[in-house]
Amino acid sequence: MTIAKAYAAQNATAALGPFSFERRDVGADDVQIDIMFCGVCHSDLHQARNDWKNSIYPMVPGHEIVGRASKVGSGVKDIKEGDLVAVGCLIDSCSTCSECKDGFEQFCQGGMIPTYNSYEKDGKTLAQGGYSDIIVVKRGFVLKVPGNLDPAAAAPLLCAGITTYSPLKHWGAGPGKKVGIVGLGGLGHMGVKFARAFGAQVAVFTTSPSKKDDAIRLGAHEVIMSKDPDDMKTHLGSFDFILDTVSAPHDLNAFLPLLKRDGTITLVGVPDSDHPPVAPFNLIFGRKSIAGSLIGGIAETQEMLDFCGKHNIVSDIEMINIQDIEAAYKRMAKSDVKYRFVIDMKSLAA
Amino acid sequence: MTIAKAYAAQNATAALGPFSFERRDVGADDVQIDIMFCGVCHSDLHQARNDWKNSIYPMVPGHEIVGRASKVGSGVKDIKEGDLVAVGCLIDSCSTCSECKDGFEQFCQGGMIPTYNSYEKDGKTLAQGGYSDIIVVKRGFVLKVPGNLDPAAAAPLLCAGITTYSPLKHWGAGPGKKVGIVGLGGLGHMGVKFARAFGAQVAVFTTSPSKKDDAIRLGAHEVIMSKDPDDMKTHLGSFDFILDTVSAPHDLNAFLPLLKRDGTITLVGVPDSDHPPVAPFNLIFGRKSIAGSLIGGIAETQEMLDFCGKHNIVSDIEMINIQDIEAAYKRMAKSDVKYRFVIDMKSLAA
Repeated sequence: MTIAKAYAAQNATAALGPFSFERRDVGADDVQIDIMFCGVCHSDLHQARNDWKNSIYPMVPGHEIVGRASKVGSGVKDIKEGDLVAVGCLIDSCSTCSECKDGFEQFCQGGMIPTYNSYEKDGKTLAQGGYSDIIVVKRGFVLKVPGNLDPAAAAPLLCAGITTYSPLKHWGAGPGKKVGIVGLGGLGHMGVKFARAFGAQVAVFTTSPSKKDDAIRLGAHEVIMSKDPDDMKTHLGSFDFILDTVSAPHDLNAFLPLLKRDGTITLVGVPDSDHPPVAPFNLIFGRKSIAGSLIGGIAETQEMLDFCGKHNIVSDIEMINIQDIEAAYKRMAKSDVKYRFVIDMKSLAA
Repeated sequence: MTIAKAYAAQNATAALGPFSFERRDVGADDVQIDIMFCGVCHSDLHQARNDWKNSIYPMVPGHEIVGRASKVGSGVKDIKEGDLVAVGCLIDSCSTCSECKDGFEQFCQGGMIPTYNSYEKDGKTLAQGGYSDIIVVKRGFVLKVPGNLDPAAAAPLLCAGITTYSPLKHWGAGPGKKVGIVGLGGLGHMGVKFARAFGAQVAVFTTSPSKKDDAIRLGAHEVIMSKDPDDMKTHLGSFDFILDTVSAPHDLNAFLPLLKRDGTITLVGVPDSDHPPVAPFNLIFGRKSIAGSLIGGIAETQEMLDFCGKHNIVSDIEMINIQDIEAAYKRMAKSDVKYRFVIDMKSLAA
């Protein structure tokens, strides 16, 4: 056993603070990782504050983890000490159900095990996340990070990256396709980068005129003001696919008429309350779809990281010390971050 | 010009009654049809009563039309007098837009012309439907009915048939697939027949235990009581595709967990008010979709009719005289019909 240093929420209202707990010894199939960086996801805040009414305390959040392999189990042949590795939103699954076998561990029928706010497979050890100095994870859930990527800026790829890469790939964003990204935050800015790298014509939908220049800088070909009916109207029936990254409730009926026949709008954000009802006519006319997508499986996450290595894609980040996490949460709640906070885990030692 | 005898609604509150109007002379590309039978669609009632606030009077409803070609334009080479032919929900479209060129005339960007409650292409002639003794329609919108089909029972294929055939085919209902049909009415009973004929495992969702035997008779392998949570639970994650034919508002969240990963529920009914909001989690978990589908294009409608000829598929009908249309509307509004009323147009002469 190793004592891990961390920051944890002790309950739904307390500020996160220093915390120590035990990480298991490295088993034959495990990799111990000295965590260098951990991205700050909106869901960290939701879960720390028990917004989803399923929080388990004490809770060490964090599922955008990048670090160096520091101990490697005897059965692990393809990762060695010193390798740059990563852990995303899940650390285990049953590995035997059809979802796991098909590479969709996130939909494991036995129940995938999230990186934190869950119990490990033994049913009693609290799984604790990446706001800590070390983590021990089964090889099957450890990703390799291409060496050319900035390790800090790569951390958000583990959640924001795969959450946008997977649906863009699945719904065929690529050359000859016009793709919209709704929202330009942690998820949206990655969606723009991937859609552009896939070769699609990329438009960003935003309510903030101030984000226009940044959207273009990130790779968008055009920016559409989603609150401007005239601007929206000029794009009627023109989109093959729209990736909706906004987690606040909003009216999907505004976007459906902008899709081509057989077009799809895919939701990756989970709002606290449901979006307003969708008018069936908006789906029926043009055989359109509303879909959802949840992160991605382990193999696809590795594929995404490899793609990022090849195309030199990382997140735009603001680095913080762990001691500044509450201030970062406050800014994130106001969408005041370009575009992802990443904790420099060296600060834990301070 | 020919004087057509018909039944028409003169306004939103009056009962339908006898009406005469002029049908155009048969042009080079036209086919004149002596109407034998016309199916009674829910939308006939909605439009006769101005439920959708877009009704034009006097209105002769009816878009499930079967009859014999009685005059054929000089330019029409593949239909001859006496042929059994049909007209469905549309009688014209621009024929030049990408939707028309792709065979999706129902989504014509110039605006498809519905069979009634619309203006013909000249912009001034009221298009009048099938509750009449003759109709003149452009060859491109006339369908051929296989000779082995009962002409009366074939009439509902033109709307109820294509409305269910098209999405079942598009979403791959077939061998090895488990397909659900929500609702067992005019649309639903055709959905069961097609899904079974396509080779799928077919389940009917109904709220009426009394429909169980009939569902099995029509071809369903099993019947699920959609209001029984225990019954629903036994089918979690098992459906590849669900075709939802119910036009009353209902909670789609009850059906989404029954879909497999990548499963789709497709709406073909248009409720007077929207369905309750869909919880995004139900889409995100399992990468599921809600879609819509609207009848089918002309080529696909012909394909459907040919399929019906090959597999001897028609609608289950109750035949009525035109004089009984108001009584039929009353019963249809209570879903008291097995499963489609068809008007015997000979009764017009009475």
